[in-house]
Order: sequence, then structure tokens, then C-alpha cells
Amino acid sequence: MKQVTEPNHLQLNKQGQLKHFLTLDGLDKALLTEILDTADSFIEVGARSIKKVPLLRGRTVVNLFFEASTRTRSTFELAAKRLSADVLNLNISTSATSKGESLSDTLQNLEAMASDMFVVRHSQSGAPHFIAESVTPNVSIINAGDGRHAHPTQAMLDMLTIRQHKGCFEGLSVAIVGDILHSRVARSQIRALKILGVSEVRVIAPNTLLPVDIESLGAKVFGCMKEGLDNVDVVIMLRLQRERMEGALLPSEDEFYKLYGLTTEKLKYAKPDAIVMHPGPINRGVEIESAVADGPQSVILNQVTNGIAVRMAVMSMAMSGHVAGRDA
Amino acid sequence: MKQVTEPNHLQLNKQGQLKHFLTLDGLDKALLTEILDTADSFIEVGARSIKKVPLLRGRTVVNLFFEASTRTRSTFELAAKRLSADVLNLNISTSATSKGESLSDTLQNLEAMASDMFVVRHSQSGAPHFIAESVTPNVSIINAGDGRHAHPTQAMLDMLTIRQHKGCFEGLSVAIVGDILHSRVARSQIRALKILGVSEVRVIAPNTLLPVDIESLGAKVFGCMKEGLDNVDVVIMLRLQRERMEGALLPSEDEFYKLYGLTTEKLKYAKPDAIVMHPGPINRGVEIESAVADGPQSVILNQVTNGIAVRMAVMSMAMSGHVAGRDA
Amino acid sequence: MKQVTEPNHLQLNKQGQLKHFLTLDGLDKALLTEILDTADSFIEVGARSIKKVPLLRGRTVVNLFFEASTRTRSTFELAAKRLSADVLNLNISTSATSKGESLSDTLQNLEAMASDMFVVRHSQSGAPHFIAESVTPNVSIINAGDGRHAHPTQAMLDMLTIRQHKGCFEGLSVAIVGDILHSRVARSQIRALKILGVSEVRVIAPNTLLPVDIESLGAKVFGCMKEGLDNVDVVIMLRLQRERMEGALLPSEDEFYKLYGLTTEKLKYAKPDAIVMHPGPINRGVEIESAVADGPQSVILNQVTNGIAVRMAVMSMAMSGHVAGRDA
Repeated sequence: MKQVTEPNHLQLNKQGQLKHFLTLDGLDKALLTEILDTADSFIEVGARSIKKVPLLRGRTVVNLFFEASTRTRSTFELAAKRLSADVLNLNISTSATSKGESLSDTLQNLEAMASDMFVVRHSQSGAPHFIAESVTPNVSIINAGDGRHAHPTQAMLDMLTIRQHKGCFEGLSVAIVGDILHSRVARSQIRALKILGVSEVRVIAPNTLLPVDIESLGAKVFGCMKEGLDNVDVVIMLRLQRERMEGALLPSEDEFYKLYGLTTEKLKYAKPDAIVMHPGPINRGVEIESAVADGPQSVILNQVTNGIAVRMAVMSMAMSGHVAGRDA
Repeated sequence: MKQVTEPNHLQLNKQGQLKHFLTLDGLDKALLTEILDTADSFIEVGARSIKKVPLLRGRTVVNLFFEASTRTRSTFELAAKRLSADVLNLNISTSATSKGESLSDTLQNLEAMASDMFVVRHSQSGAPHFIAESVTPNVSIINAGDGRHAHPTQAMLDMLTIRQHKGCFEGLSVAIVGDILHSRVARSQIRALKILGVSEVRVIAPNTLLPVDIESLGAKVFGCMKEGLDNVDVVIMLRLQRERMEGALLPSEDEFYKLYGLTTEKLKYAKPDAIVMHPGPINRGVEIESAVADGPQSVILNQVTNGIAVRMAVMSMAMSGHVAGRDA
Repeated sequence: MKQVTEPNHLQLNKQGQLKHFLTLDGLDKALLTEILDTADSFIEVGARSIKKVPLLRGRTVVNLFFEASTRTRSTFELAAKRLSADVLNLNISTSATSKGESLSDTLQNLEAMASDMFVVRHSQSGAPHFIAESVTPNVSIINAGDGRHAHPTQAMLDMLTIRQHKGCFEGLSVAIVGDILHSRVARSQIRALKILGVSEVRVIAPNTLLPVDIESLGAKVFGCMKEGLDNVDVVIMLRLQRERMEGALLPSEDEFYKLYGLTTEKLKYAKPDAIVMHPGPINRGVEIESAVADGPQSVILNQVTNGIAVRMAVMSMAMSGHVAGRDA
């Protein structure tokens, strides 16, 4: 895994506005709150019959997916279209690189086509940073998930969901459960929760699914659900990344479910008004019982709705900060 | 094949307006005529240089194709774009379900993205009904073909084509020829023709390609072309669904063509001004002779043009009925 | 290879305006200059934040790619969207033809859907001409590359790039280097350069990669780089079409690079202010040294930018000429 360096000279312009959105590392509470507030205003747009604002009219957004993901690509595509942008979907694994062109040449070509924004998903950690470092000043980069590193728009839609249901972050205790080791989502969530000032971030996982640096992120480690969920306000289940697992880190899915699957019984350890979250797609009966996923404490579908709003917020802010940064 | 129940509580709102378009079963002549009249108005839009009306501006239409069909998907995509909607194309076989997500979860996610309409094609009969039953009140479902059950927009574009050429439905005799058994198109056509009041609906097919309930639909069965085409006003050829055939229901394509292929000779059994229709894509030399497909009595390409207009009509009416239904 | 006949009765309307854009054969300097001037005006559009003009609003452009090309398809898609057209992307190899439908039926169907323009790429030389000959008067055809025959928009973006850097064509000496035999790009470039009146067109290639009729096109043949590049103003490198090569026309890529690859050393044979061009995607270390491709004389990325502008120019002119031609 490539070491990713402090990116703020990349992410922010001289006025401190967002121009790329690569990671939550180094961003402050004020900026994250601005993203959430902006997203809140787009929630209202999604509820209108004409779900369209002209903020990115005439802009070209390229969905640059080096790793297939229909769901995430669709949310970015809809977010861009609702901002009135023109969208170009490129699945790079099946494209120019098969003709032997380098990544760098592909990117330079897309820049030369006067693209305004690349939404990048890549299996290599750090790829969006690499692209942001080498791209022309005219293009804004949004990280749509890179390797095990970060998935910052996912984390921000989770934060928006928590704020909607809990009002503020102070005093909250949040537990993240499952395969922390392989999860870019978990890394970004922990970072966002710490920046926004929750009281306590817990991770619940078997030792084999914990990264070595987990405590340095500020999370408290628990090995079992009973202690880990005790009195928490928010339970975030992770997707079991079966496709990312190499070797036998887990005894079996059944065993995992028995120990770490969120059932109605185990959810009782949390506060009675605790909310249940999951980034999707759900493996029912593996990470979570259907009765919980579909139950009154679940806010999983709110997360999806908020995903569009957060992506609209980040895209419009990055474009705005980009233009302001160039003018400065 | 799943039994599909009476869908009017699903399809119509309290004011009797269309809100989903799943089947022609249970719809009345007034509503079908409204669809045709609305489609007529969109024919004019297709002839303009600016083929665009703002009726679905800011709406999100998702083409949800569980069964591949470039042609049908393209007509719905163009219809939606000409109504100014934003369109998301999802080929579900290659998408989230491969990550193990259930159909129901996929749909709930798309709903949560504030989609306004799902255009659904599925190999299982009844799938669009199932979706319409479970979907949130905000989403309108259009059936783009389900199993052997129904293909209602295809039937309505056929009705529009007949009305354009014959003026009215009363007094007409219409023959449908070919593989009735496997044809969702034929089922919907028979239903539409009966509702609109043609004098006589005939089906011409070998016994092996007839469904058991064919007479209950109100169609008169003929085993040979000479008698079946005698004096008809409209000849509708069906596509030989080779990909849907299981086992040896037919001796051979040559044999089929000899007995049921529409040749210049056999067409003479029909009225001299009879029109010839086919839903496409054509198997030339299997169901129909090229001289007939391209001849003066063929209205096959008019059907394609009418397909866009009918889909624009159904989409705009369903959206309008949907909104009116919610407000009521 | 199909013989392609003089196409001017096809390409131009009675007023001499472009209505299809199939080849440069038979077009005159005035028309090519009009394309370049129109493209110049669209360069400015690409530099704006709102990269959008309403010239093709409500028009339907179908990207009809019988041969996959993400890059070329993307540039046409962006050009069409920036002209405000609705775009339908069809990759025909994976579409209706697999259901056994003929090319002609596929085209007639797309025409019946009220398409206004087909952008056609095909592995068979002459396919766009064939389509233009058989298409209804309502549809305009743009050749996006056919077999070994022509790639006229590529040639015109090259001409725009030369004019931007050299001011005018008179007095220029231009060398085209590489696999002339398999290159539709080279054929169109030679034609365009001759029409626009450059002093000298040279081709540099091994005998095995030269077409037999090369001298009849007006190009002077050179077998080695030293003589061929001597004192030229423009060096155009071709992509080594490895996927089009059959059999052993070349000793090896290393050998090719040694003899014909454009290195810093060999570039010194040209004028000091010579520009270096390449249609992309680049095979670094095969046709061209990275130091040259990324060096100060390279205008390769300008070509890409100009590609959008030239395609916008050709599409808007053809649509305009088409409508004018129909009214006449």
C-alpha cells in the first residue's frame, strides 16, 4: 500500500476552500460542517419534482472508474446530472489502457478535452492523490474510493445521517463493526467522527480484521459485541468484503455472523434509540439480520438518499473552490 | 409462470388516471384512447428539429433492464430524453446483484436515490407487478416486457399504427401470426384490440405454439394462413423467438416459413389494402419475405416511430397520474 | 477493400454546403477553411466555464460504433453534448445484430426513431458511404473512421493544430512517419494537406508499410528519417497499428523504433521550430521517445483539444447543411 502524504496543499486552495476531495485527513470541523450544511440544502432539491440546479451547467464531469461499481457510479452520475453537468462514464479497465496507453496519457487526454472534474475510483490506495498531483489546474478530483485508503464521500454521507438523527456529534458514542482491516469506509468514518468531535469511536472486530495502526486513529478496540455495543448511540456495520479477502482470515461466514452479525438480540446492548447504519450492499444474514436492516432503528436507506446530496455538495464546492483558487 | 392478479388497484389512482403501466388487463377504451391521443401529439414533436418538451424536466428515469435489449432500451431512453428527463441505464445482470444484493435491496436503493420512474424489463412474468406492489409511492413503473406475460407499450404502438392507417377500430379484422405461445407481445395485442373494439381477432399458429387459454382471450384460432388471412384488414407477424424456444416445438425454420411465413402470395388472402406489421427485429425469410417487409403494405417502420411517441405518452401520463394520485 | 467512389453528390447539398462528412476527397480549400474557422470559434467555447451552445438542442445524435473506440467515441459524445444534443451510444457488435438483424434493418430502425445524425465507425472501408447512400434524407452521417479508408475529423483536427502553430499552410513541408499502409489517418491527412496547399507532403516508412498508390496521392516517399525529416516544419507520427498488422511486415518493435521512432536525435533533422504530432494513443518507445512526446515541440495534447472543436464544427455544419439542403 502506497504511503499517502498529507494532502492539504492539494485539497484546499489558498482561501482554504475545497478544490479536490481526496481524504478527510487534515480537514477541519468547519469545512466538514460546511459540506454537511451544503448537503442539507440539496436534500430539499431531491424532494422536489424538478430535481435540478444549474450549478454545474456546461461543466464536464468524467466518472473514471478503474474498479467497477454500478451503485457508487450511479450516485455520482445522478448527483452530477442534478447539478446540470454533462457526464461521461468511463470504465477504464475495458478502455484505452487495453490499447497500451499509460494512465498518465489517458488522464492528459481527458484534461485536453476540457474536462472539469474526475470522479475517481481505483483499487490502488493513493491513486486519486497521484492524479490530483499531476493533473492540470483546471480539473478537480473527487475520490470515489481508493484501495484500502479512503472513501470520503461515503463517510460524509454517514455523518450527515448521524447529524439528521442525533442533532449534534458532541457526546455521541459510535461503534464500527466488522472487517476494519480491508475497509476504506471505516478509515474515513473514524477520521470524520474524530474531526466532528464525537466522544468515543469504537471498533469491534476479530484481531485478524484489525489494521495495526488502528489505535493511532483514535479508535478504541473491542473484541466482542456485548462490550463494544454497550450504550452506544450509533452502530455502523461494515460490508464483509469477501472479494477483498485473501486467505483464511475468518473461520466462516456463519461463525462471523454468530460473533459479529448485528441481530435484534445484540442490538439491545446499544442505547434504545441507537441508529443502525450500513454502507451497502447488504449481505443479509452475514453482517446483519434482516429484521434489523429493515427495522425501526435502521437508517440505511437514509444513507443512500444522503449520498446523492453529499456528492452534490462536494462536487459543487470543489468546483467553486477550484475556480476561486485559479482566480486568486 | 407466476399468476398475475388484476392490477387496476395498482395501475390507476383514485381519479382513474394511469400511475403505473404494467398491463392492458382491466384498462378501458377511454384510457387507451387517451394514450393514443397523447401519443399523436408527440408524433409532431418527433418531426420537429427541436424534439424536446419539458414535461419530465428534472425527473430521474431509470432503465432497469434485467434482460438485455438494446432496441427497446434505446426507444425508452430517447423517449425519456425528449421529455427532458435525466436517464440512468442499469443492466442489472452485470451489476449489484453480482455482489449478492437482493432485487428488493437494489430497488430500495434506487428509490432512495429519488428516482421517479423505473422502466422494467424482466424475464420473469409478473416482475413489474411485484415491483409496483413493493415500491414507494413516489416511483412509477413502466413495464417494458415481462416474461411471456405482457409488453403493453409495444401493443399500444401497434394500436397507434393501426389507427393511423385505418382510422378507427370498429369493423376491423386483425390476424396475429406465429409463435403466440411464447409471445408477450401477442397477449398484449389481443387485449388491446379487444378493448378498442375491433370486430375480430384471429391468431394463426401451429397447435404447438398456441397457449391453452387462447380462446378465453377472445381470439379465434386458425391453423393455416389461407383461412386465417382471408379478408383481414391487418396482419401482425410475430418474431420467431428462437432464443425462447425449448425443445422441438417446430420442425424447422424452413418448414415454418413454408407454412406461416408471410409471402407476397399469402398476403393476397388479406384485403388488398391490408397493412403488415411486425414488432422487430425481423428474421427475413423466417417469418416474412423481404418483398413484403419492404413492400407498400408494410408499416413496420411506422411502428418504430410510433414507439417513441407512445412511450413518451405513457411516461408523461404515468408521471402526471402519479403526482395527482399522491396529492389526492 | 471496397472501392469508394467520388462522394460529393453525397457530402454536399445543392448550395455546396456540407450535409454528410465522409471523406476529404473532392472537398475544396474553401470548405476545409470554413471547417477550421468554425472550429476556431468552438475553441473559445471549450475554454468557458459553461461549455455549451444550443446549436443542436433537441437533436438526436447516435454514436454508431461497429468498432470499439472509447477515446474517439468520448470526443464525439462530448462534442455533441456541448452542442446540446441528446446522445445515444450504441456499440453494435454487442447489440441487435446478435439477434440476427441486418445492418440495413438496424439503420432503418434508428432512422424511424427520428435520429438526426449517425456518427459511424466501422472496420470496413466505405461503410459510412454505404450508410449515407441508403439513409433517409433526414439523417446526417459523420465518418468516425472506416477501415483503412478515411478518418476525416482526425485529419481536420490535425490541420487546425498546424494552422494554430504555423499560421498558414503555404510553404510548409510536412512529414508523416510510420505505418502508412494500414492508416486511414494518413490517407486523410495527405488529402487535407494537399487541398490546403502545403508545399510538400512526405511519407517516411519501410516499403512493406507503404500502399501501392501512395505517390498518386501526391506524397513523396522516403525510406529513412534523416532525409525524410530534413528541414520539415511538421512531423506527424502515426500509431503503430499492431492490432491491424497481419503477418510479419516488421522485423520487431525495437527495430522499428531504431529506424523510425522519433527520438530527440532524429527530431534535430527537422526545422528547429518544427512541431510534433501524433493521433494517439501513443506507444511510448515504439513510435516516439517520451522526451519528444512530452517535449516543447510536441503539440499532441493540442490535437486532443482541437478534436472536440473540430467535431463540434463538423456536426453543426452538417446539420445546418442538411436542413438547408432539404428546404432547397
